[in-house]
Amino acid sequence: LSKKKRRNHSHKRGLPPGSLVYVGKERQDDVKITVIDYNKEHIEERDISKVQQCYPYLRTSNVTWINISGIHDVNLVEKIGEEFGLHPLLLEDILNSDHRPKLSHLDQHLLVILKRLYVHPDDFQVRDEQISILLGENTVITFQENEADDFDSIRSQIKESIGDIRKLGADFLMYRIIDSIVDRYLLEIERLNDHIEQLEEEVVLHPTQQILHRIYIFKKQIIRFRKNTWPAREVIHKLEKNEYEFIQPSTRFYYSDIHEHIIQLNDMVETTRGIMTSLLDVYFSSVSHRMNEIMKVLTIVSTVFIPLTFIVGVYGMNFAFMPELEWHWGYPMVWGVMILLTSSMFIFFRKRKWI
Amino acid sequence: LSKKKRRNHSHKRGLPPGSLVYVGKERQDDVKITVIDYNKEHIEERDISKVQQCYPYLRTSNVTWINISGIHDVNLVEKIGEEFGLHPLLLEDILNSDHRPKLSHLDQHLLVILKRLYVHPDDFQVRDEQISILLGENTVITFQENEADDFDSIRSQIKESIGDIRKLGADFLMYRIIDSIVDRYLLEIERLNDHIEQLEEEVVLHPTQQILHRIYIFKKQIIRFRKNTWPAREVIHKLEKNEYEFIQPSTRFYYSDIHEHIIQLNDMVETTRGIMTSLLDVYFSSVSHRMNEIMKVLTIVSTVFIPLTFIVGVYGMNFAFMPELEWHWGYPMVWGVMILLTSSMFIFFRKRKWI
Amino acid sequence: LSKKKRRNHSHKRGLPPGSLVYVGKERQDDVKITVIDYNKEHIEERDISKVQQCYPYLRTSNVTWINISGIHDVNLVEKIGEEFGLHPLLLEDILNSDHRPKLSHLDQHLLVILKRLYVHPDDFQVRDEQISILLGENTVITFQENEADDFDSIRSQIKESIGDIRKLGADFLMYRIIDSIVDRYLLEIERLNDHIEQLEEEVVLHPTQQILHRIYIFKKQIIRFRKNTWPAREVIHKLEKNEYEFIQPSTRFYYSDIHEHIIQLNDMVETTRGIMTSLLDVYFSSVSHRMNEIMKVLTIVSTVFIPLTFIVGVYGMNFAFMPELEWHWGYPMVWGVMILLTSSMFIFFRKRKWI
Amino acid sequence: LSKKKRRNHSHKRGLPPGSLVYVGKERQDDVKITVIDYNKEHIEERDISKVQQCYPYLRTSNVTWINISGIHDVNLVEKIGEEFGLHPLLLEDILNSDHRPKLSHLDQHLLVILKRLYVHPDDFQVRDEQISILLGENTVITFQENEADDFDSIRSQIKESIGDIRKLGADFLMYRIIDSIVDRYLLEIERLNDHIEQLEEEVVLHPTQQILHRIYIFKKQIIRFRKNTWPAREVIHKLEKNEYEFIQPSTRFYYSDIHEHIIQLNDMVETTRGIMTSLLDVYFSSVSHRMNEIMKVLTIVSTVFIPLTFIVGVYGMNFAFMPELEWHWGYPMVWGVMILLTSSMFIFFRKRKWI
Amino acid sequence: LSKKKRRNHSHKRGLPPGSLVYVGKERQDDVKITVIDYNKEHIEERDISKVQQCYPYLRTSNVTWINISGIHDVNLVEKIGEEFGLHPLLLEDILNSDHRPKLSHLDQHLLVILKRLYVHPDDFQVRDEQISILLGENTVITFQENEADDFDSIRSQIKESIGDIRKLGADFLMYRIIDSIVDRYLLEIERLNDHIEQLEEEVVLHPTQQILHRIYIFKKQIIRFRKNTWPAREVIHKLEKNEYEFIQPSTRFYYSDIHEHIIQLNDMVETTRGIMTSLLDVYFSSVSHRMNEIMKVLTIVSTVFIPLTFIVGVYGMNFAFMPELEWHWGYPMVWGVMILLTSSMFIFFRKRKWI
Repeated sequence: LSKKKRRNHSHKRGLPPGSLVYVGKERQDDVKITVIDYNKEHIEERDISKVQQCYPYLRTSNVTWINISGIHDVNLVEKIGEEFGLHPLLLEDILNSDHRPKLSHLDQHLLVILKRLYVHPDDFQVRDEQISILLGENTVITFQENEADDFDSIRSQIKESIGDIRKLGADFLMYRIIDSIVDRYLLEIERLNDHIEQLEEEVVLHPTQQILHRIYIFKKQIIRFRKNTWPAREVIHKLEKNEYEFIQPSTRFYYSDIHEHIIQLNDMVETTRGIMTSLLDVYFSSVSHRMNEIMKVLTIVSTVFIPLTFIVGVYGMNFAFMPELEWHWGYPMVWGVMILLTSSMFIFFRKRKWI
Repeated sequence: LSKKKRRNHSHKRGLPPGSLVYVGKERQDDVKITVIDYNKEHIEERDISKVQQCYPYLRTSNVTWINISGIHDVNLVEKIGEEFGLHPLLLEDILNSDHRPKLSHLDQHLLVILKRLYVHPDDFQVRDEQISILLGENTVITFQENEADDFDSIRSQIKESIGDIRKLGADFLMYRIIDSIVDRYLLEIERLNDHIEQLEEEVVLHPTQQILHRIYIFKKQIIRFRKNTWPAREVIHKLEKNEYEFIQPSTRFYYSDIHEHIIQLNDMVETTRGIMTSLLDVYFSSVSHRMNEIMKVLTIVSTVFIPLTFIVGVYGMNFAFMPELEWHWGYPMVWGVMILLTSSMFIFFRKRKWI
Repeated sequence: LSKKKRRNHSHKRGLPPGSLVYVGKERQDDVKITVIDYNKEHIEERDISKVQQCYPYLRTSNVTWINISGIHDVNLVEKIGEEFGLHPLLLEDILNSDHRPKLSHLDQHLLVILKRLYVHPDDFQVRDEQISILLGENTVITFQENEADDFDSIRSQIKESIGDIRKLGADFLMYRIIDSIVDRYLLEIERLNDHIEQLEEEVVLHPTQQILHRIYIFKKQIIRFRKNTWPAREVIHKLEKNEYEFIQPSTRFYYSDIHEHIIQLNDMVETTRGIMTSLLDVYFSSVSHRMNEIMKVLTIVSTVFIPLTFIVGVYGMNFAFMPELEWHWGYPMVWGVMILLTSSMFIFFRKRKWI
Repeated sequence: LSKKKRRNHSHKRGLPPGSLVYVGKERQDDVKITVIDYNKEHIEERDISKVQQCYPYLRTSNVTWINISGIHDVNLVEKIGEEFGLHPLLLEDILNSDHRPKLSHLDQHLLVILKRLYVHPDDFQVRDEQISILLGENTVITFQENEADDFDSIRSQIKESIGDIRKLGADFLMYRIIDSIVDRYLLEIERLNDHIEQLEEEVVLHPTQQILHRIYIFKKQIIRFRKNTWPAREVIHKLEKNEYEFIQPSTRFYYSDIHEHIIQLNDMVETTRGIMTSLLDVYFSSVSHRMNEIMKVLTIVSTVFIPLTFIVGVYGMNFAFMPELEWHWGYPMVWGVMILLTSSMFIFFRKRKWI
Repeated sequence: LSKKKRRNHSHKRGLPPGSLVYVGKERQDDVKITVIDYNKEHIEERDISKVQQCYPYLRTSNVTWINISGIHDVNLVEKIGEEFGLHPLLLEDILNSDHRPKLSHLDQHLLVILKRLYVHPDDFQVRDEQISILLGENTVITFQENEADDFDSIRSQIKESIGDIRKLGADFLMYRIIDSIVDRYLLEIERLNDHIEQLEEEVVLHPTQQILHRIYIFKKQIIRFRKNTWPAREVIHKLEKNEYEFIQPSTRFYYSDIHEHIIQLNDMVETTRGIMTSLLDVYFSSVSHRMNEIMKVLTIVSTVFIPLTFIVGVYGMNFAFMPELEWHWGYPMVWGVMILLTSSMFIFFRKRKWI
């Protein structure tokens, strides 16, 4: 996946700025547009096929949430850009699914680009997906690469009028969307942490080459996680601190709550990195412990039998005059000497705590 | 424990903000509410069972300290929140025993969330427990997960009117509470440090795999300790520097004293981490030292006996014409050669400082 | 190459400041000067041989782009410096192909010095080439060491009037030039990253000394990459933030887009460095894993055969009285004992997971 | 020592703030109070036994230096605190010999707490001792744990009127005291550095387990040194920058001189830490070098003699039909083969640079 | 050398501040004073023996450069201090050849203390030498420990009136002096870097203990280099940014040029440190690679011959009833078995890529 993305980057080289090219995984499926239009009393939800169909909703004083799942339809995004007077460079950012999280303050809108992160349950690969949120006076437009179920709970709260969401404006809706993304971060980092505890056990018991490879992959995932969440902190801090006209003072309190969560998240990511480094030390130690064990066995066996072999070699010599060979108790005596030697070696090994 | 907590985090996903859910270890025991109401002349202490019973105390000009042990009773916390006009997001923070230390400045209150840390005497696991302190004009409300004996000394000072506590206001009471928490940090980090000195000895004498595991666990505990005390520094710095209306200028001097303590604490934590890293180097060196010892024994035994075995093998050959075999002094001469060889090897080993 | 450059550095020692000396690879090829002069309706492109030939263009209100490929002709650069009233120290910087990226704000011009980076496709050596861009009111002068094809796409956009470039001023032209340089950075760091994935595989499968050497070379290249792109961030940040009279407010938005790219670039460089470090751990582990494998084979063979050799040695002794030798089943019995011993050893090895 | 101190820390837990408890090594010896009262013409030095005896000196316009050696007499310190109107929390800090270096600006005084550091000449243990300096208008009061000879030279300069000390005020006297403490730091870090050069030699020549232990202890001492001198930098920076009424502008120049010294000191400490880390690498390399040496000897001996032993074993076989055994030149031929084999092995070893 | 210096430090302890003591290598040679007095038309150069002889030059409006080679003559420095009204603490700094680079802004002068660094061509030891530069209105006084040829080119430019130096003031002269010092830094770090490339080759080919020792020494030199050049950056930054009355605005542009050079220098030093660390990894890997090679030889020889020795041992047994011994083809059959065994082992080794 990541390779494909990168290749596409080079497709853009040499084009004039603002040339809209989709940078991301190639795909064929249809783009899906959903409109939710609501106020305290009224709510309407509709799936539409053409952008133009949502224009009437924009002109009302209701809160309108337009969600676009699939940003590979460049024309569609371009049309929305025209309608909202977005700069072509910003449309480029929305289409480039590799973009860094950012906040752009425009004359009539606020553009927030964030990453949704998923940790694959089997191989713990971190997959990122870009979400661009455009906040106007009564409008929120969300662009996502795939349709994700993360927004379902928000939708049902709107539909069933749970909590205050129907009473509050578009700024509160954006808060709920960002909150669901950051909550997902916390959930996923906790899953990564749970997996570390598994790794710990295996590292001590079976420090194979495969485990090391897993630690390495895991470390890379943590680095990718951090790369995507670190700039998000800055984005949310700006939402909390700066006074944008589209965000009401009463809502800013909610953004400061997200800000706390993302600080906690970054704490957890750093902690996890620290623990991974320690885990590597444990791995290397386990490996060298096993090495020691192997060496000990070799040393014990060699140290016991090489001298014995020498002794029996002595009496295998064919000298004409070897008085011991003729002694009647020669053979048992040699055994006696050998048993004595072996016993003293065992005492030596025990003293050194080798056996 | 920590696993259970995390699982609960996911229980909250998808709920509207401000939905009160207790995040922490599940428990059944009753919540205990204690009220202490005092001024210079008068003092009253009462255990109550319903929140409403404490309202009369709040209306007097006396200092009122309400301590709630057990935050798993969501309804109770909600009622207090209503009475004090707390934002639901703040109640959420109080109920989430995983929350990062923070300070919230509200219109009529100051909310401080800190962690109480315990180091288990046997396995040196760091256990954290959340304490939320709500400071109003004449009121301090403390929420703690369990009833801890840390507050007993404060209570007895109030009751027996030791020091100035009875003469001063709620801001001084909060200082005393935070001071008791930070004092506990210092005590616990000292216990961790004492244990490091034990570890040091064992690392040099018996660098087993178990010791490494203990170092690893220990490092993780230090990281957890740091994670909980680092943000506390910021909280206390705000209490010292900012001019909150509930904290009198004369009391701020006390807070700057706590601030110094927590800076010293963080120094100690960093120092401890540095020492742990060095200790690991000592461990690895001890292990490789033992490896060297094993290799030396193997090398000495092999180097001495393998050549001897060769020599005796020579005279074990069955050639028809081997003149030495017939010599009368052949056998003693071979012994002579072998003793010579062994002696020169011992001299060689001694020169290399192997024995 | 790099050695040659450095030597030349010492050629400058002791000269008064502003003495113009070319610091870089020696070369003989001719310097090539190209002029492009354009406005909305009109365009003219010309290769010229003398600097004086471009002066008429400078006096028009059209945008004039003078590109000089080859900075080793000191006289030429000096003449341009005179014409534009550049300080000799700045001419020195332009001629010193070793200079750090920088931005100089002069009375009538803005001088930007950047590096163009190429990663060699075979040995992944990072080659840097200095580009100096001088921005006047309607003029852009670029100095490059070699003629690079990076500017071809800009030229063809001007000639074929693609995008807005013909409608906008010299500040936009400079943006396009810098953008092409930064895009190249992103492309090259992606190629380096692709190569890391190759390295990863080889490190696990064939951790030879050569691989380590390649990791080392690679790390050095990343360090060089970082050294050249890190200060560029600062340069572009200044272009974005400061209000230079030669850059119109509407163009500054484009510079902030480059700024985002270069921040993303630096993120990628840091991530790459982190991964290289982890890769080294994998390498060391792979090496020690192979060592373990070798030791295991040695230990198994020695541990099995050394005791057996001892046993057969016993019955090779020539004692006159060795009853076993006379037994009819002596020889088969010895074989039986040896097979038993070997089998039990195999069980021991299997239990230890050595085979 | 350090253990004893820490234990005492817990004695304070639960006491109301400002409860004066001495935290430090227990001791019985008498507290010694010395008063020096001087101006340009006049000087008086006296040992006194009661605090009250020094009060008359405080009321004159002369500079009065009261030195208290031994802070374990809590009552004494309390009396001084009353006389000077010190806050009980500050008295607590003076009595707590574990306190971090700090500067407190009070209404009528300036309190500076610093550490005097001694490196034990034999085991290079860093011993710290707290010095509290209280600066009033014409008064300097110093509290030290033990009587140290560091102040003797200051005293003799006062008595013999060397330099400007008699002409200048209490602020200059405090400068001289702090200067003597910082000079001591420089001296002690130089002694530590000298010892590193000794360690270096031993690490290369005799990398024993004991050396590693010494490196470890040494590193811990450097960390302790740093812990005590780092916050001192901040204290002195405040003295240099802030405009305290008790320090005349002309004296502030002297404080900036100390500030430079302590910055240089911190440079030296960091350099020392960096060198210690490198030294550890040298240690580990020396150990593995010795390991290599041992392995080489083992390999050479085994590789030479194991094949020879096989050859002689062949002709020790008792087959009825072994034609070589009957050859007249069989025995010398075997010797020839063996010498040939050994020689070629030596050539092989030499080529590999093993011998 | 460095030891001697340090010892002298302790000579100063206990002296009142401003007591002038030379801290540095002891020396006997004469101090040499050179005066150059010049303006556009006129120049005079003179070696003088007494400070007083240079006073007349100071009173003219010409630029006067007094260079003092050798600062061990304390009286001389003291006299100059009196003439220029320098604070005794500053004279102390000039005499202390161990002092950290610094800038002091005085009423009538600017004092700059820098280090001149030399890398010894053979052992790559970094030798530092202190240069103090005192800038007055028309005066530059330089104090250096030894007479260095670095200033010769400046002198000849003045004498032969090359460049603008004769037309500009004392501030430009100081720029030229500092520039020559910083140029020297760049030259020396390049020499260190060239040597690293040599080390690289040797590390891979002959990773001996001596190489490690050289890496260690080298690292220490880089640390010393950094220690001396890092604070110089700050000094030059102040010269560039602050508006000192002795430096004309037109000259400040030259100082910003030096500032760029010293930033580039610090980049190079950091890069060099990073490469040294990687080099150490290569070293350790090369060592363990050789270890692997040794182990492989041992394992191959042992694994081939130990089983063979066992086989021939079997037929060396003296059992009365060993049917194989009597077989006519017994001896060749044993050889056959042994050849078969050896061949299969070689196949095994080849599969594992050991040979």
